Amino acid sequence: MSNKETLTVFKIGGNVVDNETALQAFLKDFAAVQGAKILVHGGGKVADKILSALGIVPQKVEGRRITDAPTLEVVTQVYAGSINKKIVAGLQANNCPALGVSGADANLIKAHKRRAKNGVDYGFVGDIDVVNTTEVNFLLQRYTLVFSAITHDKNGNLLNTNADTIASTLAISMSKNFDVTLKFIFEKQGVLRDVQDENSVIERIDTQLLTQGKADKIFFDGMIPKLDNAFAALHEGVKRVFICGTEGVRPDTKAQGTLLEL
Amino acid sequence: MSNKETLTVFKIGGNVVDNETALQAFLKDFAAVQGAKILVHGGGKVADKILSALGIVPQKVEGRRITDAPTLEVVTQVYAGSINKKIVAGLQANNCPALGVSGADANLIKAHKRRAKNGVDYGFVGDIDVVNTTEVNFLLQRYTLVFSAITHDKNGNLLNTNADTIASTLAISMSKNFDVTLKFIFEKQGVLRDVQDENSVIERIDTQLLTQGKADKIFFDGMIPKLDNAFAALHEGVKRVFICGTEGVRPDTKAQGTLLEL
Repeated sequence: MSNKETLTVFKIGGNVVDNETALQAFLKDFAAVQGAKILVHGGGKVADKILSALGIVPQKVEGRRITDAPTLEVVTQVYAGSINKKIVAGLQANNCPALGVSGADANLIKAHKRRAKNGVDYGFVGDIDVVNTTEVNFLLQRYTLVFSAITHDKNGNLLNTNADTIASTLAISMSKNFDVTLKFIFEKQGVLRDVQDENSVIERIDTQLLTQGKADKIFFDGMIPKLDNAFAALHEGVKRVFICGTEGVRPDTKAQGTLLEL
Repeated sequence: MSNKETLTVFKIGGNVVDNETALQAFLKDFAAVQGAKILVHGGGKVADKILSALGIVPQKVEGRRITDAPTLEVVTQVYAGSINKKIVAGLQANNCPALGVSGADANLIKAHKRRAKNGVDYGFVGDIDVVNTTEVNFLLQRYTLVFSAITHDKNGNLLNTNADTIASTLAISMSKNFDVTLKFIFEKQGVLRDVQDENSVIERIDTQLLTQGKADKIFFDGMIPKLDNAFAALHEGVKRVFICGTEGVRPDTKAQGTLLEL
Protein backbone atom coordinates (compact mmCIF):
# COMPACT_ATOMS: atom_id res chain seq x y z
CA MET A 1 0.00 0.00 0.00
CA SER A 2 1.51 3.34 -1.04
CA ASN A 3 0.82 6.50 0.92
CA LYS A 4 -0.95 8.08 -2.03
CA GLU A 5 -4.65 8.86 -1.71
CA THR A 6 -6.93 6.15 -3.06
CA LEU A 7 -9.01 6.57 -6.20
CA THR A 8 -11.48 3.98 -7.44
CA VAL A 9 -12.62 4.06 -11.06
CA PHE A 10 -15.81 2.09 -11.75
CA LYS A 11 -17.21 1.16 -15.12
CA ILE A 12 -20.82 0.09 -15.56
CA GLY A 13 -22.47 -1.03 -18.78
CA GLY A 14 -25.90 -1.55 -20.27
CA ASN A 15 -26.83 -4.38 -17.90
CA VAL A 16 -26.87 -1.90 -15.00
CA VAL A 17 -27.91 1.24 -16.90
CA ASP A 18 -30.97 -0.41 -18.52
CA ASN A 19 -32.29 -1.91 -15.29
CA GLU A 20 -33.81 0.77 -13.05
CA THR A 21 -33.78 -1.42 -9.92
CA ALA A 22 -30.21 -2.60 -10.47
CA LEU A 23 -29.09 0.97 -11.22
CA GLN A 24 -30.62 2.48 -8.07
CA ALA A 25 -29.17 -0.32 -5.91
CA PHE A 26 -25.76 0.20 -7.51
CA LEU A 27 -25.88 3.98 -6.99
CA LYS A 28 -26.72 3.55 -3.32
CA ASP A 29 -23.72 1.23 -2.82
CA PHE A 30 -21.46 3.38 -4.98
CA ALA A 31 -22.36 6.48 -2.93
CA ALA A 32 -21.10 4.67 0.19
CA VAL A 33 -17.65 3.89 -1.26
CA GLN A 34 -14.91 5.82 0.57
CA GLY A 35 -12.22 7.93 -1.06
CA ALA A 36 -12.04 9.70 -4.41
CA LYS A 37 -14.06 7.97 -7.11
CA ILE A 38 -15.03 8.13 -10.73
CA LEU A 39 -17.91 6.36 -12.47
CA VAL A 40 -17.79 5.70 -16.21
CA HIS A 41 -21.01 4.50 -17.78
CA GLY A 42 -21.74 2.97 -21.14
CA GLY A 43 -24.87 3.19 -23.18
CA GLY A 44 -27.62 0.67 -23.07
CA LYS A 45 -30.59 0.03 -25.28
CA VAL A 46 -32.27 3.45 -25.18
CA ALA A 47 -30.10 4.87 -27.97
CA ASP A 48 -31.03 1.97 -30.25
CA LYS A 49 -34.72 2.57 -29.55
CA ILE A 50 -34.49 6.24 -30.53
CA LEU A 51 -32.32 5.52 -33.58
CA SER A 52 -34.90 3.02 -34.72
CA ALA A 53 -37.80 5.46 -34.11
CA LEU A 54 -35.94 8.06 -36.18
CA GLY A 55 -35.38 5.48 -38.92
CA ILE A 56 -31.59 5.36 -38.42
CA VAL A 57 -30.33 1.77 -38.62
CA PRO A 58 -27.47 1.16 -36.14
CA GLN A 59 -24.46 -0.51 -37.72
CA LYS A 60 -21.67 -2.26 -35.88
CA VAL A 61 -18.28 -3.64 -36.89
CA GLU A 62 -16.51 -5.87 -34.38
CA GLY A 63 -18.92 -4.83 -31.64
CA ARG A 64 -18.30 -1.14 -32.16
CA ARG A 65 -21.03 1.10 -33.44
CA ILE A 66 -20.34 2.90 -36.69
CA THR A 67 -21.15 6.43 -35.72
CA ASP A 68 -22.45 8.64 -38.52
CA ALA A 69 -23.52 12.21 -37.68
CA PRO A 70 -27.18 11.44 -36.82
CA THR A 71 -26.11 8.45 -34.71
CA LEU A 72 -23.57 10.61 -32.85
CA GLU A 73 -26.32 13.13 -32.07
CA VAL A 74 -28.56 10.41 -30.61
CA VAL A 75 -25.82 8.69 -28.57
CA THR A 76 -24.76 12.09 -27.21
CA GLN A 77 -28.37 12.74 -26.22
CA VAL A 78 -28.72 9.43 -24.45
CA TYR A 79 -25.25 8.93 -22.93
CA ALA A 80 -24.38 12.53 -21.97
CA GLY A 81 -28.02 13.56 -21.47
CA SER A 82 -30.59 11.24 -19.96
CA ILE A 83 -28.34 8.45 -18.61
CA ASN A 84 -25.65 10.74 -17.23
CA LYS A 85 -28.11 13.11 -15.54
CA LYS A 86 -30.23 10.26 -14.16
CA ILE A 87 -27.10 8.83 -12.53
CA VAL A 88 -26.03 12.25 -11.19
CA ALA A 89 -29.49 12.96 -9.73
CA GLY A 90 -29.58 9.45 -8.22
CA LEU A 91 -26.18 9.97 -6.58
CA GLN A 92 -27.15 13.42 -5.28
CA ALA A 93 -30.21 11.80 -3.68
CA ASN A 94 -27.70 9.55 -1.85
CA ASN A 95 -25.68 12.61 -0.74
CA CYS A 96 -22.86 11.80 -3.12
CA PRO A 97 -21.53 15.06 -4.66
CA ALA A 98 -21.73 13.91 -8.26
CA LEU A 99 -20.74 16.00 -11.28
CA GLY A 100 -21.57 14.56 -14.69
CA VAL A 101 -19.11 15.19 -17.49
CA SER A 102 -18.13 14.21 -21.00
CA GLY A 103 -14.58 14.40 -22.29
CA ALA A 104 -15.43 17.78 -23.83
CA ASP A 105 -16.27 19.32 -20.44
CA ALA A 106 -13.26 21.14 -18.99
CA ASN A 107 -11.40 19.51 -21.91
CA LEU A 108 -11.08 16.43 -19.69
CA ILE A 109 -10.45 13.88 -22.46
CA LYS A 110 -9.12 14.84 -25.85
CA ALA A 111 -9.40 12.25 -28.61
CA HIS A 112 -9.10 12.06 -32.37
CA LYS A 113 -11.48 10.61 -34.91
CA ARG A 114 -10.42 7.03 -35.60
CA ARG A 115 -8.67 6.65 -38.94
CA ALA A 116 -10.39 4.36 -41.44
CA LYS A 117 -8.88 0.85 -41.36
CA ASN A 118 -9.21 -1.85 -44.04
CA GLY A 119 -11.78 0.30 -45.78
CA VAL A 120 -13.91 0.62 -42.63
CA ASP A 121 -14.66 4.20 -41.60
CA TYR A 122 -15.97 4.06 -38.03
CA GLY A 123 -17.33 7.60 -38.32
CA PHE A 124 -17.33 9.81 -35.25
CA VAL A 125 -15.56 7.32 -33.01
CA GLY A 126 -12.82 8.65 -30.76
CA ASP A 127 -9.44 7.17 -29.88
CA ILE A 128 -8.11 8.89 -26.78
CA ASP A 129 -5.05 11.16 -27.02
CA VAL A 130 -4.81 12.51 -23.49
CA VAL A 131 -6.55 12.83 -20.15
CA ASN A 132 -6.31 16.32 -18.67
CA THR A 133 -5.16 15.19 -15.21
CA THR A 134 -4.84 18.77 -13.89
CA GLU A 135 -8.56 19.35 -14.37
CA VAL A 136 -9.55 15.87 -13.18
CA ASN A 137 -7.52 16.51 -10.01
CA PHE A 138 -9.13 19.90 -9.51
CA LEU A 139 -12.64 18.49 -9.83
CA LEU A 140 -11.92 15.43 -7.67
CA GLN A 141 -11.16 17.76 -4.76
CA ARG A 142 -14.90 18.23 -4.35
CA TYR A 143 -16.79 15.93 -6.68
CA THR A 144 -17.40 12.36 -7.72
CA LEU A 145 -17.03 12.49 -11.48
CA VAL A 146 -19.56 10.65 -13.66
CA PHE A 147 -18.23 10.24 -17.21
CA SER A 148 -20.39 9.50 -20.21
CA ALA A 149 -18.55 7.78 -23.07
CA ILE A 150 -18.38 10.90 -25.23
CA THR A 151 -15.11 12.73 -25.88
CA HIS A 152 -14.09 15.59 -28.22
CA ASP A 153 -11.25 16.51 -30.55
CA LYS A 154 -10.80 20.12 -29.31
CA ASN A 155 -11.90 21.24 -32.81
CA GLY A 156 -15.58 21.25 -31.94
CA ASN A 157 -16.36 17.63 -32.78
CA LEU A 158 -17.83 15.21 -30.26
CA LEU A 159 -16.69 11.58 -30.53
CA ASN A 160 -18.33 8.35 -29.41
CA THR A 161 -15.74 6.50 -27.35
CA ASN A 162 -15.57 3.03 -25.81
CA ALA A 163 -16.50 3.22 -22.12
CA ASP A 164 -14.07 0.44 -21.05
CA THR A 165 -11.25 2.35 -22.72
CA ILE A 166 -12.25 5.60 -21.01
CA ALA A 167 -12.26 3.83 -17.64
CA SER A 168 -8.85 2.21 -18.08
CA THR A 169 -7.28 5.34 -19.61
CA LEU A 170 -8.56 7.46 -16.71
CA ALA A 171 -7.26 4.86 -14.23
CA ILE A 172 -3.82 4.78 -15.86
CA SER A 173 -3.56 8.57 -16.17
CA MET A 174 -4.52 9.18 -12.54
CA SER A 175 -2.02 6.58 -11.24
CA LYS A 176 0.72 9.21 -10.93
CA ASN A 177 -1.17 10.94 -8.15
CA PHE A 178 -3.39 8.23 -6.73
CA ASP A 179 -3.35 4.61 -5.61
CA VAL A 180 -5.86 3.49 -8.25
CA THR A 181 -8.28 0.58 -8.17
CA LEU A 182 -10.22 -0.11 -11.37
CA LYS A 183 -13.52 -2.02 -11.15
CA PHE A 184 -15.29 -3.34 -14.22
CA ILE A 185 -18.86 -4.18 -13.19
CA PHE A 186 -20.34 -6.71 -15.58
CA GLU A 187 -23.17 -9.24 -15.76
CA LYS A 188 -21.35 -12.10 -13.95
CA GLN A 189 -20.03 -12.14 -10.39
CA GLY A 190 -16.46 -12.39 -11.71
CA VAL A 191 -14.29 -14.30 -14.16
CA LEU A 192 -15.60 -17.87 -14.15
CA ARG A 193 -13.43 -20.99 -14.19
CA ASP A 194 -16.37 -22.81 -15.74
CA VAL A 195 -18.66 -20.61 -17.83
CA GLN A 196 -21.61 -22.93 -16.98
CA ASP A 197 -21.10 -22.50 -13.23
CA GLU A 198 -21.91 -19.07 -11.79
CA ASN A 199 -20.24 -20.10 -8.54
CA SER A 200 -16.86 -20.83 -10.12
CA VAL A 201 -15.55 -17.25 -9.73
CA ILE A 202 -11.74 -17.14 -9.84
CA GLU A 203 -10.60 -15.14 -6.83
CA ARG A 204 -7.33 -13.84 -8.21
CA ILE A 205 -5.56 -13.80 -11.55
CA ASP A 206 -1.89 -12.87 -11.87
CA THR A 207 0.33 -12.83 -14.94
CA GLN A 208 1.14 -16.52 -14.58
CA LEU A 209 -2.50 -17.61 -14.33
CA LEU A 210 -3.36 -15.33 -17.24
CA THR A 211 -0.88 -17.14 -19.51
CA GLN A 212 -1.89 -20.55 -18.22
CA GLY A 213 -5.63 -19.83 -18.44
CA LYS A 214 -5.28 -18.74 -22.05
CA ALA A 215 -3.33 -21.91 -22.89
CA ASP A 216 -5.89 -24.07 -21.09
CA LYS A 217 -8.79 -22.25 -22.86
CA ILE A 218 -10.30 -21.27 -19.49
CA PHE A 219 -10.33 -17.75 -20.90
CA PHE A 220 -11.76 -17.32 -24.37
CA ASP A 221 -13.83 -15.08 -26.64
CA GLY A 222 -14.82 -11.71 -25.15
CA MET A 223 -12.98 -12.38 -21.88
CA ILE A 224 -9.52 -12.27 -23.51
CA PRO A 225 -9.60 -8.59 -24.57
CA LYS A 226 -11.13 -7.70 -21.15
CA LEU A 227 -8.23 -9.42 -19.37
CA ASP A 228 -5.57 -8.07 -21.74
CA ASN A 229 -6.98 -4.57 -21.29
CA ALA A 230 -6.93 -5.00 -17.49
CA PHE A 231 -3.34 -6.28 -17.43
CA ALA A 232 -2.25 -3.45 -19.71
CA ALA A 233 -3.65 -1.04 -17.11
CA LEU A 234 -1.76 -2.88 -14.35
CA HIS A 235 1.48 -2.62 -16.34
CA GLU A 236 0.91 1.12 -16.67
CA GLY A 237 0.50 1.90 -12.98
CA VAL A 238 -3.00 0.85 -11.90
CA LYS A 239 -2.64 -1.04 -8.61
CA ARG A 240 -5.46 -3.55 -8.91
CA VAL A 241 -8.33 -4.37 -11.22
CA PHE A 242 -11.54 -6.14 -10.27
CA ILE A 243 -13.89 -7.80 -12.71
CA CYS A 244 -17.08 -8.26 -10.74
CA GLY A 245 -20.86 -8.01 -10.56
CA THR A 246 -22.88 -5.15 -9.06
CA GLU A 247 -22.47 -6.72 -5.61
CA GLY A 248 -18.72 -6.16 -5.86
CA VAL A 249 -19.08 -2.40 -5.41
CA ARG A 250 -18.73 -2.14 -1.67
CA PRO A 251 -15.38 -3.02 -0.13
CA ASP A 252 -17.11 -4.70 2.84
CA THR A 253 -18.85 -7.40 0.84
CA LYS A 254 -17.45 -10.79 -0.03
CA ALA A 255 -18.63 -10.47 -3.63
CA GLN A 256 -15.50 -8.67 -4.80
CA GLY A 257 -15.37 -10.82 -7.93
CA THR A 258 -12.01 -11.51 -9.55
CA LEU A 259 -8.96 -9.53 -8.47
CA LEU A 260 -6.33 -9.00 -11.15
CA GLU A 261 -2.83 -8.15 -9.97
CA LEU A 262 0.65 -8.36 -11.44
CA MET B 1 -18.98 50.36 -10.59
CA SER B 2 -18.26 48.27 -7.50
CA ASN B 3 -14.89 46.67 -6.92
CA LYS B 4 -16.39 43.20 -7.14
CA GLU B 5 -15.29 40.91 -9.97
CA THR B 6 -17.57 40.99 -12.98
CA LEU B 7 -19.79 38.08 -13.97
CA THR B 8 -21.91 38.03 -17.12
CA VAL B 9 -24.83 35.60 -17.38
CA PHE B 10 -26.05 35.01 -20.93
CA LYS B 11 -29.24 33.29 -21.97
CA ILE B 12 -29.78 31.97 -25.49
CA GLY B 13 -32.90 30.31 -26.84
CA GLY B 14 -34.05 28.19 -29.73
CA ASN B 15 -33.39 30.86 -32.37
CA VAL B 16 -29.64 30.52 -31.71
CA VAL B 17 -29.52 26.85 -30.71
CA ASP B 18 -31.39 25.63 -33.81
CA ASN B 19 -29.27 27.61 -36.29
CA GLU B 20 -25.81 26.05 -36.66
CA THR B 21 -24.27 29.15 -38.29
CA ALA B 22 -25.75 31.54 -35.74
CA LEU B 23 -24.69 29.24 -32.89
CA GLN B 24 -21.06 28.95 -34.03
CA ALA B 25 -20.83 32.72 -34.56
CA PHE B 26 -22.30 33.31 -31.12
CA LEU B 27 -19.92 30.85 -29.45
CA LYS B 28 -16.92 32.54 -31.05
CA ASP B 29 -18.01 35.95 -29.74
CA PHE B 30 -19.01 34.53 -26.36
CA ALA B 31 -15.58 32.91 -25.97
CA ALA B 32 -13.98 36.35 -26.36
CA VAL B 33 -16.00 37.96 -23.55
CA GLN B 34 -13.76 38.90 -20.60
CA GLY B 35 -14.37 38.00 -16.96
CA ALA B 36 -16.34 35.20 -15.34
CA LYS B 37 -19.27 34.05 -17.41
CA ILE B 38 -22.19 31.66 -17.49
CA LEU B 39 -24.24 30.58 -20.49
CA VAL B 40 -27.78 29.28 -20.02
CA HIS B 41 -29.38 27.69 -23.05
CA GLY B 42 -32.94 26.73 -23.82
CA GLY B 43 -34.18 23.96 -25.99
CA GLY B 44 -35.08 24.35 -29.61
CA LYS B 45 -36.96 22.18 -32.03
CA VAL B 46 -34.93 18.96 -31.80
CA ALA B 47 -36.82 17.71 -28.74
CA ASP B 48 -40.15 18.13 -30.54
CA LYS B 49 -38.83 16.15 -33.50
CA ILE B 50 -37.79 13.21 -31.32
CA LEU B 51 -41.00 13.35 -29.27
CA SER B 52 -42.95 13.20 -32.49
CA ALA B 53 -40.85 10.29 -33.85
CA LEU B 54 -41.49 8.42 -30.60
CA GLY B 55 -45.21 9.14 -30.89
CA ILE B 56 -45.27 11.43 -27.83
CA VAL B 57 -47.43 14.51 -28.49
CA PRO B 58 -45.96 17.63 -26.82
CA GLN B 59 -48.48 19.58 -24.79
CA LYS B 60 -48.10 23.15 -23.64
CA VAL B 61 -50.04 25.38 -21.26
CA GLU B 62 -49.23 29.10 -21.33
CA GLY B 63 -46.10 28.45 -23.36
CA ARG B 64 -44.74 25.91 -20.91
CA ARG B 65 -44.40 22.30 -21.89
CA ILE B 66 -46.33 19.82 -19.79
CA THR B 67 -43.60 17.40 -18.93
CA ASP B 68 -44.71 13.82 -18.44
CA ALA B 69 -42.05 11.17 -17.74
CA PRO B 70 -41.31 10.24 -21.39
CA THR B 71 -41.16 13.94 -22.33
CA LEU B 72 -38.76 14.63 -19.46
CA GLU B 73 -36.49 11.84 -20.70
CA VAL B 74 -36.39 13.32 -24.20
CA VAL B 75 -35.85 16.94 -23.11
CA THR B 76 -33.08 15.78 -20.78
CA GLN B 77 -31.48 13.95 -23.71
CA VAL B 78 -31.64 16.96 -25.97
CA TYR B 79 -31.00 19.85 -23.54
CA ALA B 80 -28.42 18.25 -21.21
CA GLY B 81 -27.06 15.90 -23.89
CA SER B 82 -26.67 16.95 -27.49
CA ILE B 83 -27.22 20.73 -27.20
CA ASN B 84 -25.18 21.17 -24.03
CA LYS B 85 -22.24 19.09 -25.28
CA LYS B 86 -22.28 20.67 -28.74
CA ILE B 87 -21.99 24.09 -27.08
CA VAL B 88 -19.22 22.90 -24.75
CA ALA B 89 -17.22 21.35 -27.60
CA GLY B 90 -17.71 24.51 -29.68
CA LEU B 91 -16.44 26.70 -26.83
CA GLN B 92 -13.47 24.41 -26.20
CA ALA B 93 -12.58 24.77 -29.90
CA ASN B 94 -12.47 28.54 -29.20
CA ASN B 95 -10.18 27.96 -26.18
CA CYS B 96 -12.94 28.82 -23.75
CA PRO B 97 -12.72 26.45 -20.72
CA ALA B 98 -16.37 25.39 -20.79
CA LEU B 99 -17.96 22.94 -18.38
CA GLY B 100 -21.51 21.85 -19.15
CA VAL B 101 -23.85 21.30 -16.23
CA SER B 102 -27.45 20.76 -15.23
CA GLY B 103 -28.85 21.81 -11.89
CA ALA B 104 -28.32 18.24 -10.66
CA ASP B 105 -24.55 18.39 -11.23
CA ALA B 106 -22.73 19.38 -8.06
CA ASN B 107 -26.25 20.03 -6.74
CA LEU B 108 -25.99 23.45 -8.38
CA ILE B 109 -29.71 24.20 -8.60
CA LYS B 110 -32.27 22.53 -6.37
CA ALA B 111 -35.89 22.85 -7.38
CA HIS B 112 -39.24 21.30 -6.52
CA LYS B 113 -41.89 19.85 -8.78
CA ARG B 114 -44.42 22.56 -9.52
CA ARG B 115 -47.65 22.09 -7.60
CA ALA B 116 -50.77 21.58 -9.72
CA LYS B 117 -52.64 24.85 -10.19
CA ASN B 118 -56.28 25.27 -11.30
CA GLY B 119 -56.36 21.58 -12.10
CA VAL B 120 -53.30 21.82 -14.38
CA ASP B 121 -50.49 19.43 -13.43
CA TYR B 122 -47.37 20.60 -15.27
CA GLY B 123 -45.66 17.27 -14.62
CA PHE B 124 -41.91 17.23 -14.10
CA VAL B 125 -41.48 21.01 -14.23
CA GLY B 126 -39.20 22.58 -11.66
CA ASP B 127 -39.60 25.78 -9.68
CA ILE B 128 -36.24 26.79 -8.26
CA ASP B 129 -35.62 26.65 -4.50
CA VAL B 130 -31.94 27.56 -4.29
CA VAL B 131 -28.73 28.08 -6.23
CA ASN B 132 -25.70 26.50 -4.57
CA THR B 133 -23.49 29.57 -4.78
CA THR B 134 -20.56 27.87 -3.00
CA GLU B 135 -20.25 25.31 -5.80
CA VAL B 136 -20.91 27.84 -8.57
CA ASN B 137 -18.11 29.99 -7.10
CA PHE B 138 -15.76 27.03 -6.90
CA LEU B 139 -16.36 26.05 -10.52
CA LEU B 140 -16.17 29.65 -11.81
CA GLN B 141 -12.58 29.81 -10.55
CA ARG B 142 -11.59 27.79 -13.58
CA TYR B 143 -14.54 27.27 -15.89
CA THR B 144 -17.17 28.97 -17.97
CA LEU B 145 -20.36 27.21 -16.91
CA VAL B 146 -22.87 26.14 -19.55
CA PHE B 147 -26.25 25.36 -17.98
CA SER B 148 -28.94 23.29 -19.63
CA ALA B 149 -32.46 24.03 -18.38
CA ILE B 150 -32.72 20.86 -16.29
CA THR B 151 -32.69 20.93 -12.48
CA HIS B 152 -33.34 18.32 -9.78
CA ASP B 153 -35.16 17.96 -6.49
CA LYS B 154 -32.32 16.25 -4.56
CA ASN B 155 -34.57 13.19 -4.30
CA GLY B 156 -33.43 11.72 -7.58
CA ASN B 157 -35.91 13.45 -9.88
CA LEU B 158 -34.84 15.64 -12.77
CA LEU B 159 -37.06 18.64 -13.55
CA ASN B 160 -37.58 20.62 -16.74
CA THR B 161 -37.06 24.27 -15.82
CA ASN B 162 -37.57 27.56 -17.66
CA ALA B 163 -34.22 28.78 -19.03
CA ASP B 164 -35.01 32.51 -18.54
CA THR B 165 -35.77 31.77 -14.89
CA ILE B 166 -32.54 29.81 -14.46
CA ALA B 167 -30.57 32.71 -15.95
CA SER B 168 -32.16 35.40 -13.77
CA THR B 169 -32.03 33.25 -10.62
CA LEU B 170 -28.34 32.53 -11.20
CA ALA B 171 -27.70 36.23 -11.83
CA ILE B 172 -29.52 37.26 -8.65
CA SER B 173 -27.88 34.57 -6.51
CA MET B 174 -24.37 35.45 -7.70
CA SER B 175 -24.86 39.19 -7.07
CA LYS B 176 -23.58 38.89 -3.51
CA ASN B 177 -20.11 38.08 -4.78
CA PHE B 178 -20.03 39.54 -8.27
CA ASP B 179 -20.93 42.66 -10.22
CA VAL B 180 -23.47 40.85 -12.41
CA THR B 181 -24.62 41.70 -15.93
CA LEU B 182 -27.49 39.61 -17.33
CA LYS B 183 -27.92 39.36 -21.10
CA PHE B 184 -31.00 37.89 -22.70
CA ILE B 185 -30.17 37.12 -26.34
CA PHE B 186 -33.34 36.97 -28.41
CA GLU B 187 -34.48 37.23 -32.03
CA LYS B 188 -34.61 41.06 -32.22
CA GLN B 189 -31.75 43.53 -31.77
CA GLY B 190 -33.39 44.87 -28.62
CA VAL B 191 -36.69 46.13 -27.26
CA LEU B 192 -38.37 48.00 -30.13
CA ARG B 193 -40.23 51.28 -29.79
CA ASP B 194 -42.17 50.28 -32.92
CA VAL B 195 -42.58 46.54 -33.40
CA GLN B 196 -42.73 47.06 -37.20
CA ASP B 197 -39.37 48.86 -37.26
CA GLU B 198 -36.28 46.73 -36.54
CA ASN B 199 -34.23 49.91 -36.22
CA SER B 200 -36.32 51.39 -33.40
CA VAL B 201 -34.32 49.74 -30.61
CA ILE B 202 -34.76 51.57 -27.31
CA GLU B 203 -31.28 52.22 -25.89
CA ARG B 204 -32.15 52.31 -22.22
CA ILE B 205 -35.18 51.55 -20.06
CA ASP B 206 -35.36 52.63 -16.42
CA THR B 207 -38.20 52.24 -13.93
CA GLN B 208 -39.88 55.42 -15.13
CA LEU B 209 -39.82 54.44 -18.81
CA LEU B 210 -41.05 50.96 -17.87
CA THR B 211 -44.17 52.40 -16.23
CA GLN B 212 -44.71 54.94 -19.00
CA GLY B 213 -44.12 52.38 -21.80
CA LYS B 214 -46.67 50.03 -20.29
CA ALA B 215 -49.24 52.87 -20.02
CA ASP B 216 -48.54 53.96 -23.61
CA LYS B 217 -48.79 50.34 -24.85
CA ILE B 218 -45.25 50.50 -26.28
CA PHE B 219 -44.62 47.29 -24.31
CA PHE B 220 -47.22 44.57 -24.67
CA ASP B 221 -47.77 40.80 -24.91
CA GLY B 222 -44.66 38.67 -24.40
CA MET B 223 -42.42 41.67 -23.77
CA ILE B 224 -44.13 42.57 -20.47
CA PRO B 225 -43.15 39.43 -18.51
CA LYS B 226 -39.61 39.69 -20.01
CA LEU B 227 -39.29 43.26 -18.73
CA ASP B 228 -40.90 42.52 -15.36
CA ASN B 229 -38.57 39.55 -14.92
CA ALA B 230 -35.57 41.74 -15.78
CA PHE B 231 -36.56 44.52 -13.38
CA ALA B 232 -37.19 41.98 -10.63
CA ALA B 233 -33.57 40.83 -11.13
CA LEU B 234 -32.37 44.45 -10.92
CA HIS B 235 -34.29 44.97 -7.68
CA GLU B 236 -32.61 41.86 -6.26
CA GLY B 237 -29.02 42.91 -6.91
CA VAL B 238 -28.25 42.39 -10.60
CA LYS B 239 -26.43 45.52 -11.83
CA ARG B 240 -27.67 45.68 -15.40
CA VAL B 241 -29.75 43.65 -17.83
CA PHE B 242 -29.49 43.71 -21.62
CA ILE B 243 -32.17 42.47 -23.98
CA CYS B 244 -30.38 42.14 -27.29
CA GLY B 245 -29.66 40.10 -30.41
CA THR B 246 -26.69 37.79 -30.99
CA GLU B 247 -24.61 40.79 -32.05
CA GLY B 248 -24.96 42.22 -28.55
CA VAL B 249 -22.63 39.61 -27.08
CA ARG B 250 -19.34 41.46 -27.29
CA PRO B 251 -18.87 44.56 -25.18
CA ASP B 252 -16.98 46.31 -28.00
CA THR B 253 -19.86 46.32 -30.48
CA LYS B 254 -22.51 48.98 -30.80
CA ALA B 255 -25.26 46.37 -31.01
CA GLN B 256 -25.69 46.13 -27.25
CA GLY B 257 -29.47 46.21 -27.61
CA THR B 258 -31.58 47.59 -24.80
CA LEU B 259 -29.99 48.31 -21.42
CA LEU B 260 -32.28 47.99 -18.42
CA GLU B 261 -31.23 49.76 -15.25
CA LEU B 262 -32.98 50.96 -12.11
